[in-house]
Amino acid sequence: MNIIEIILKKKRGEALTREEIRFFARGAADGSLPDEQLAALLMAICLRGMTPQETADLTMEMMHSGEVVDLSGVGGVCVDKHSTGGVGDTTTLVLTPLVAACGAKVAKMSGRGLGHTGGTLDKLESIPGCTVSLSQEAFVAQVRRIGCAVIGQTGDLVPADKRLYALRDVTGTVDSVPLIASSILSKKLAAGAHAIVLDVKTGSGALMQTLEDSVELAQAMVRIGTLAGRPILAMVTGMDQPLGTHVGNALEVKEAIDILSGRADGKSADLREVSMLLGEQMLLAAGAAPSRDEARRRLEHALESGAGLEKLREMIAAQGGDARVCDDTGLLPRARYILPVPAMRDGYVCSMDTTGIGYVAQGLGAGRARKTDVIDPAVGLVMAVRIGERLCEGEPIAYIHANDEARGRAAVERMQQLVRLSDAQPQRPPLVLAEVTPQGVRRA
Amino acid sequence: MNIIEIILKKKRGEALTREEIRFFARGAADGSLPDEQLAALLMAICLRGMTPQETADLTMEMMHSGEVVDLSGVGGVCVDKHSTGGVGDTTTLVLTPLVAACGAKVAKMSGRGLGHTGGTLDKLESIPGCTVSLSQEAFVAQVRRIGCAVIGQTGDLVPADKRLYALRDVTGTVDSVPLIASSILSKKLAAGAHAIVLDVKTGSGALMQTLEDSVELAQAMVRIGTLAGRPILAMVTGMDQPLGTHVGNALEVKEAIDILSGRADGKSADLREVSMLLGEQMLLAAGAAPSRDEARRRLEHALESGAGLEKLREMIAAQGGDARVCDDTGLLPRARYILPVPAMRDGYVCSMDTTGIGYVAQGLGAGRARKTDVIDPAVGLVMAVRIGERLCEGEPIAYIHANDEARGRAAVERMQQLVRLSDAQPQRPPLVLAEVTPQGVRRA
Repeated sequence: MNIIEIILKKKRGEALTREEIRFFARGAADGSLPDEQLAALLMAICLRGMTPQETADLTMEMMHSGEVVDLSGVGGVCVDKHSTGGVGDTTTLVLTPLVAACGAKVAKMSGRGLGHTGGTLDKLESIPGCTVSLSQEAFVAQVRRIGCAVIGQTGDLVPADKRLYALRDVTGTVDSVPLIASSILSKKLAAGAHAIVLDVKTGSGALMQTLEDSVELAQAMVRIGTLAGRPILAMVTGMDQPLGTHVGNALEVKEAIDILSGRADGKSADLREVSMLLGEQMLLAAGAAPSRDEARRRLEHALESGAGLEKLREMIAAQGGDARVCDDTGLLPRARYILPVPAMRDGYVCSMDTTGIGYVAQGLGAGRARKTDVIDPAVGLVMAVRIGERLCEGEPIAYIHANDEARGRAAVERMQQLVRLSDAQPQRPPLVLAEVTPQGVRRA
Repeated sequence: MNIIEIILKKKRGEALTREEIRFFARGAADGSLPDEQLAALLMAICLRGMTPQETADLTMEMMHSGEVVDLSGVGGVCVDKHSTGGVGDTTTLVLTPLVAACGAKVAKMSGRGLGHTGGTLDKLESIPGCTVSLSQEAFVAQVRRIGCAVIGQTGDLVPADKRLYALRDVTGTVDSVPLIASSILSKKLAAGAHAIVLDVKTGSGALMQTLEDSVELAQAMVRIGTLAGRPILAMVTGMDQPLGTHVGNALEVKEAIDILSGRADGKSADLREVSMLLGEQMLLAAGAAPSRDEARRRLEHALESGAGLEKLREMIAAQGGDARVCDDTGLLPRARYILPVPAMRDGYVCSMDTTGIGYVAQGLGAGRARKTDVIDPAVGLVMAVRIGERLCEGEPIAYIHANDEARGRAAVERMQQLVRLSDAQPQRPPLVLAEVTPQGVRRA
């Protein structure tokens, strides 16, 4: 098989065969194809697209380019949730213990933060002593014993994606539905998930900024999961403002604990609600609840009874962390400076550059510009307002948590530009915009 | 400046600025941009195109990515001719001495054969002793003294093109008008040409197989040359059969000498005529003739008087070669076996796979599959028929000149498939299909 012929075929807009896609994915994984040929093919795929069949084939070939985790040992249906990434998006920390407390198994391999988005692994590591590096055996054993685990990738999973993901990052070929869908799903499938719930973010802080693109991505992924024989469903949820109020690693852990302990204030309601909605779907997908209403009832009970918080305690302890943080969030790393961001005028909060807010947190040290950057677990910001609320001049929009005063002051100024105020009262943006199942799209 | 932003801009189909194109061309030349980013941008250019201004900017930035030859020392207008490449395309060897004999200066940097096309440097080197490696000073001095020289590139000319050309070859991004046009013109301009005549081949043996694509390429190049302030003109000529009857290095030198000495047979008439037509344009472009008719008259006189052959003798001698080949072509390398290719049936020669014929010559050793291959100057083939002629079964279509009998026999069989015979008498294909000047396109 000749890679130049394959590139030319895609360049002409023709569909590639399963064999051609295998040649490409294997060549990416084993290093036999050079970067420049992969890059040219990736750009041709971006501009010419892929059919549903091609996208499914690419997912399967990427999945089989490396090890595939066997989760049959956990003694139950393992349900995984994947978010396409946003700001203040702490649903994993809220719903993993809740769903496990309701009897489903959550064996989750998460990622690290990059760019303007945070990563669950970094958040967990902000808990003193907590590790995310478990052997595959320890991982399966923990899920079997307590029902959940959240760790970093183990073994050589999806090496084709590792190579292609790094290449896409530097060649302007990130925003392609077939490439995003196959990258996400190949990793979920290789990580052994039996059922999958997807949270596709849409809006100013999301990878996909328009609803149409988000629905297209959700459909592509649901199609692949279905072809792979997995129960799968996607919710398209709003990312026009940070989902939770807390942005930053220890700060997001604190908000998750506050929700699970019933101590969170009303501004955390959106994060709580999206976590519950995704949790409902996870219980249904795992066959752990007979109906959506019943799933909701169980989740609410797990929250109110403290069973969810107890499960988080167990998980942190099992992963070597100081579980006392669940009772005293003051034990989490704290920043030296807390600087309010005063509103420059009276008005309604009408919109936010949510990606920009993510980059403010990154600039403070909460995220990475390059994979090799070291993060500061303590820093970040806490939003004091949500879209639709009214402020008077001088009232706080947010609080910057900084360990360097000059960087903190710069963040304050930047935040004043990123949160826009208007005279007219805007609509509150919807929380859920669409639900995509194998049966079709239901818009909210 | 950020190369990813530039890639994304072109991916969206937007025009790049001169500064962005400079960043790309310099980065290709100095190695600061990696292959994968260049490859992604090249594919985006292939699929999204470039405006005339972008194409001209790219040409200029590639030209200035390295040394630029100064031909002011040759004492006259230097006119260059460039062919986009074909099979049996020996016009350079015929017209360079003829044009120089008519008083114009021809300081030519030529290329080597690759793929199915031959290269003038390889042809010249088949003459015993003849070198194509001259210093820039010796090159200028030879042109000043005898009016012409044909050598390989000296110095570090257009390093950006060297890098991009090699990348395009392996990434399926060869067939893009802006990329081809800027590659050709940047080299011609860097080689110091004062006036340029282009021979854009079209048909089964050409890079561009359709007339539309060929005219588009010709227009792009004429536009660039005009923006660069050079007299420039393009002829679109037929490549539906080998232009000359001889294909192979020493064989093509023999045919050129036969034409210049008046010994060529009627089957060489097309090569002779295209050489004369291009020669006319070269004399006009160099200001060495007042009209096309007068240019033709002088070229015919140079041919009939033997002045052209004498100029070739001078050039070969100046470049260290055995000029006696001009009087005795038997001194050129000769192949061990000459095998006729018999027609399999009666019929008219109706079409040829001319690219395939080029590859037959390559397979015999006349060309290179890889840049590092060593060529055999003696081998090749001589066509015995032209499209439109009638043959009886068993009559020769061509003669294979081989140094290996098995390879020769394989070539005979392959040739029988590549030259098609029909019952109906076909039209003879036109020699010139269009002429493209800064004023517009004139179709034949």
